[in-house]
Amino acid sequence: MLQHRFFQKTLLGGIAPLLLSGMLITQVTPASASDHGHHKAHAKFNQAGELVRPANFREWVFIGAPVTPKDMNNGKPAFPEFHYAYIDPASWAHWKKTGEFREGAIIAKELVSVGSKSAASGSGYFPGDYGGPVAVSVKDSKRFAKSNNWGYFVFGDDKAQSAAADESCAGCHKTNAAQDMVFTQYWAPLRAASPKK
Amino acid sequence: MLQHRFFQKTLLGGIAPLLLSGMLITQVTPASASDHGHHKAHAKFNQAGELVRPANFREWVFIGAPVTPKDMNNGKPAFPEFHYAYIDPASWAHWKKTGEFREGAIIAKELVSVGSKSAASGSGYFPGDYGGPVAVSVKDSKRFAKSNNWGYFVFGDDKAQSAAADESCAGCHKTNAAQDMVFTQYWAPLRAASPKK
Repeated sequence: MLQHRFFQKTLLGGIAPLLLSGMLITQVTPASASDHGHHKAHAKFNQAGELVRPANFREWVFIGAPVTPKDMNNGKPAFPEFHYAYIDPASWAHWKKTGEFREGAIIAKELVSVGSKSAASGSGYFPGDYGGPVAVSVKDSKRFAKSNNWGYFVFGDDKAQSAAADESCAGCHKTNAAQDMVFTQYWAPLRAASPKK
Repeated sequence: MLQHRFFQKTLLGGIAPLLLSGMLITQVTPASASDHGHHKAHAKFNQAGELVRPANFREWVFIGAPVTPKDMNNGKPAFPEFHYAYIDPASWAHWKKTGEFREGAIIAKELVSVGSKSAASGSGYFPGDYGGPVAVSVKDSKRFAKSNNWGYFVFGDDKAQSAAADESCAGCHKTNAAQDMVFTQYWAPLRAASPKK
């Protein structure tokens, strides 16, 4: 399983101590028209080519929340357990007009544990707490031409560290994602808002 | 099960044909300071006291996505199956400052089916399509003093219709919700952003 291997290799094992503090931050994605005010988000990279963790992505536009519970994956899902996925507002606005991901699009995925399996509304999986790493993909045809224009980054619990994801992310997205390296097959908000639907 | 009874009674059985078109719409919640520009949302009620379906709540701030799958609830969960829940941006801003739900707060919950149980990321529940009704709660101490200041409304597939939820919504929230009639125990984004945590 590609993601599992990736998480073991990069997050659990060999995160390089990339201390971003003090490094020059350069903004490489030009400002794009957006009607979302302070919600404007642009991918920022440091001099090492590492993505800077996006701020406030929890306030971006939500696109879906699959759950791969521990008890359905022998205790070790690749991404434990809920995956809360978001797209930056400017790219959402572009998507609504075009049904395509703009240059500079950012998609963030944050993990949330399963808190309980029973509630007043029935049996199922109910969200618990944050705890896992944050994975972020950025569409940038110049930086990431080799991986179908998308780059992949993972941020661990320590917000000061990040690790460039290896080829496993891109490989899995290339093989399994429905549209332009994005798993739109699971993102009802995107499909419903696309003018191409 | 309260919700199940409610959905049977109100949505499947006895929705009154409340045709909202042509009715006078009055805005009763005063404008509140918000840094979310066009995202400002205010609860609107028609002359019959029915909430008008909020527009664009899919662009509000996401607060969580429990799933009560059919195959874990004898085929008939009260809310099939994913529950995508959102809070209006002005109330989110207020929450971040105070850890409380402001007067006029709106929380929307939309249902999404389970599309598959297996994906590249493992076994679990993966979102499918929209299809169920939209449930909306509004905090208004004048209108809903009898139910702890919150009113509950459900909008069926036909966007032109709505139905005032009966006491079952309020009863269940009163009994089971962790804070001020809201199921904050399942909403990691709210808990993490609260200054009271």
